[in-house]
Amino acid sequence: MYKQAIVIRKDLGISSGKQAGQVSHASVSAYEKTKKTNPEIAQAWFTEGQKKIVLKVQNESELLDYFNQCKRAGIPCELIRDAGHTQLEPNTLTCFGAGPWDEKEIDKILGKLKLL
Amino acid sequence: MYKQAIVIRKDLGISSGKQAGQVSHASVSAYEKTKKTNPEIAQAWFTEGQKKIVLKVQNESELLDYFNQCKRAGIPCELIRDAGHTQLEPNTLTCFGAGPWDEKEIDKILGKLKLL
Repeated sequence: MYKQAIVIRKDLGISSGKQAGQVSHASVSAYEKTKKTNPEIAQAWFTEGQKKIVLKVQNESELLDYFNQCKRAGIPCELIRDAGHTQLEPNTLTCFGAGPWDEKEIDKILGKLKLL
Repeated sequence: MYKQAIVIRKDLGISSGKQAGQVSHASVSAYEKTKKTNPEIAQAWFTEGQKKIVLKVQNESELLDYFNQCKRAGIPCELIRDAGHTQLEPNTLTCFGAGPWDEKEIDKILGKLKLL
């Protein structure tokens, strides 16, 4: 079973709509990344109904820590920087998307994080 | 300029994480739909940085009304039904994604809705 995880900072102070926009951005970007490296996984995930979870971390340093762990494990990941047109300073790191990828591999790294 | 809009019901009573997951689902699905019908628009939008807005409606009937208006206007759209494993009843209509598509065409129909 394949799953996508999106990890977002809780310390951004943004609206739930802005949050949903950032998470979507990470979702589409990580999906495209997996599609390039492992198209059969991306396709299977999409067909299975796009299983995904949205998780939270406390700040930028935690975000980068988990992002780097996922990258080192070979999971296709994309880190999102907000352009800063509205609620955030330009280039704020907001979230990252990981996979779709093997659910167990994702959980091994991100399984201890809480749901947003 | 191309834009994607995601429209979600405000009466679902779900967590902001669940909300972000539903919005992402609509975002990926509508993106794939546009890719099939208008691959050059999907590609341009992705390269331009995925401009998107998340908008709200009050209930299911408003959701369907705007969804049908977008469809009639020829905008690639995908309506999302939640599988209902966690916070919602099975098959609850939660949101829809429209485009990426020409920004003016999107705004003509959805421009009066409020941001989530």
